[in-house]
Amino acid sequence: MKPYLGIDVGGTFIKVGLVSDTGTLLHHEKVPTEAQRGGAAILDNIVEGAKRCVAHAQMDWDEIAGAGVGVPGLLDAASGIVRQAPNLPDWDNLPVRDRLTEKLGIPVQVENDANAAAFGEWWVGAGQGVDHLIGLTLGTGVGGGLILNGKIYHGAIGAAAELGHMTIDPYHPYVKEGIRGSLEALASGLAIVKFATEGLKSEDADILLQMVKENDNEITPYIVYKAAQAGDSLSAHIYHEVGTFLGIGIANLIHIFNPQMVVIAGGIAAAYDLFAPPMMKQITERTFETSRQCVQIAKAQLGEFAGLIGAAASIKFKD
Amino acid sequence: MKPYLGIDVGGTFIKVGLVSDTGTLLHHEKVPTEAQRGGAAILDNIVEGAKRCVAHAQMDWDEIAGAGVGVPGLLDAASGIVRQAPNLPDWDNLPVRDRLTEKLGIPVQVENDANAAAFGEWWVGAGQGVDHLIGLTLGTGVGGGLILNGKIYHGAIGAAAELGHMTIDPYHPYVKEGIRGSLEALASGLAIVKFATEGLKSEDADILLQMVKENDNEITPYIVYKAAQAGDSLSAHIYHEVGTFLGIGIANLIHIFNPQMVVIAGGIAAAYDLFAPPMMKQITERTFETSRQCVQIAKAQLGEFAGLIGAAASIKFKD
Repeated sequence: MKPYLGIDVGGTFIKVGLVSDTGTLLHHEKVPTEAQRGGAAILDNIVEGAKRCVAHAQMDWDEIAGAGVGVPGLLDAASGIVRQAPNLPDWDNLPVRDRLTEKLGIPVQVENDANAAAFGEWWVGAGQGVDHLIGLTLGTGVGGGLILNGKIYHGAIGAAAELGHMTIDPYHPYVKEGIRGSLEALASGLAIVKFATEGLKSEDADILLQMVKENDNEITPYIVYKAAQAGDSLSAHIYHEVGTFLGIGIANLIHIFNPQMVVIAGGIAAAYDLFAPPMMKQITERTFETSRQCVQIAKAQLGEFAGLIGAAASIKFKD
Repeated sequence: MKPYLGIDVGGTFIKVGLVSDTGTLLHHEKVPTEAQRGGAAILDNIVEGAKRCVAHAQMDWDEIAGAGVGVPGLLDAASGIVRQAPNLPDWDNLPVRDRLTEKLGIPVQVENDANAAAFGEWWVGAGQGVDHLIGLTLGTGVGGGLILNGKIYHGAIGAAAELGHMTIDPYHPYVKEGIRGSLEALASGLAIVKFATEGLKSEDADILLQMVKENDNEITPYIVYKAAQAGDSLSAHIYHEVGTFLGIGIANLIHIFNPQMVVIAGGIAAAYDLFAPPMMKQITERTFETSRQCVQIAKAQLGEFAGLIGAAASIKFKD
């Protein structure tokens, strides 16, 4: 069976990979997005990355089954038109699928990047073989993807799976994108930095303080994680809070979807061991045994390539 | 086209209706459930109601296309086996579909009652013609049903759509089925009675107090509704709270599903005008315009027959 191209369009880099029909990443290239040069340049860079991949594999274009493109934004997968992509200039209302089909000469499918990442984990990652999978990506923000009955669920206009905007604690002081106490306001990289910044003003946190100083006074989720590991109690408390909020959110999703798998991806997932215990406590307290027994909570397995592999899956499993 | 039997099994009564192929309720019968007589008696009563319906229509059994049965409990629609039905003795693990197929001699489909009610509203009620519909039934508790891509969504073992168990306010004093601050703990008939009972201890609420006295000292959601309409401020505040919590929950569901329709059913929906303004305020504050523009929030249209009609739909639209 012919391989696919999987393309993951980020704000800074575009990753293009050659993915076998069974989901193995055979080769990948990384090219700059150059968003500042405008929408046409982004398309050109995608094509450049794709060409390099195909050339490296010494293949002809008619040996490639198709290309799947993961895009950070709201889009209509059926028509291949991107509706809103805040980080990609001039891409709003761009018929990305048709433009790339023309330029590459192979079938193209576009998909939201968080959906693609969840689909990648479903295909060859942590969630292989399940019917119903929920993907949560904990990065700067919180992204979501829903695989229901083995297919990506899009909703009316492709705006489904915005799991980070679910309210978890409606009267919490933290607000993100106007939504008070949302999962993203409470359990994202930005939230961790905010908790730490405020905590440092009022609490003794010598270990964290020292580590922040050594990091040019920049607080990052990773620094807070390392400080927690080194015994800093403020930092440990922050990850405890994050795990608690995340657990409440996942408990909600278990009641709503009765899924078999919840996969946690993104940079913050590196601290899984720290936030998992309070997360599991909330899940245990807030769900029933019948649905809890069906579901596994797991760290993502595909790392930074989940989106690329899932994009390839989006063309392979296209209806 | 042949009509269907729609059967709605409640804890007290079983409703059986003859439903045309286009969703018109042609005739209905109501028989007692007699749950205290055991599981076999419940099956016999279903058969009795069905026979009366068919006899009243002066039809032969081979003129009936099939029967759909809505059951209050956890069940596996594919195998027709009820897993847990707390209010129906001896029904746990009963192959209800096969038993009734034997007794009635026509194809039978079983479905969860809240799913059936949502499916009924989707077929011929408030949500006709949409792809993605969320049903919320506000009664003593809060039930849910999910119609995604025009089909009932069941999850791994039929335990999906437990929307009432979603946490809305995790530190609220109210707890339902062990879940602190769930939608059911905060926006159900039981919650309204609890809010009113506690409110009456500490607040002036002369109008509500008088109405409760006239109702043999029994507080019901309907009494609180009437008192609010008559100008009682405690009662108005209670429905304001209920609407606020409900709005937070619906906002979450809009982010998760990007649906076209949210249908609110059940006895509490009678007070729609009272709780809708605070509900809509939360939805407006906590969702984005793109997905809000896709969705309509509406009162259910089929009243007490939604479950029966939806049960008929569950056999008509069976995969």
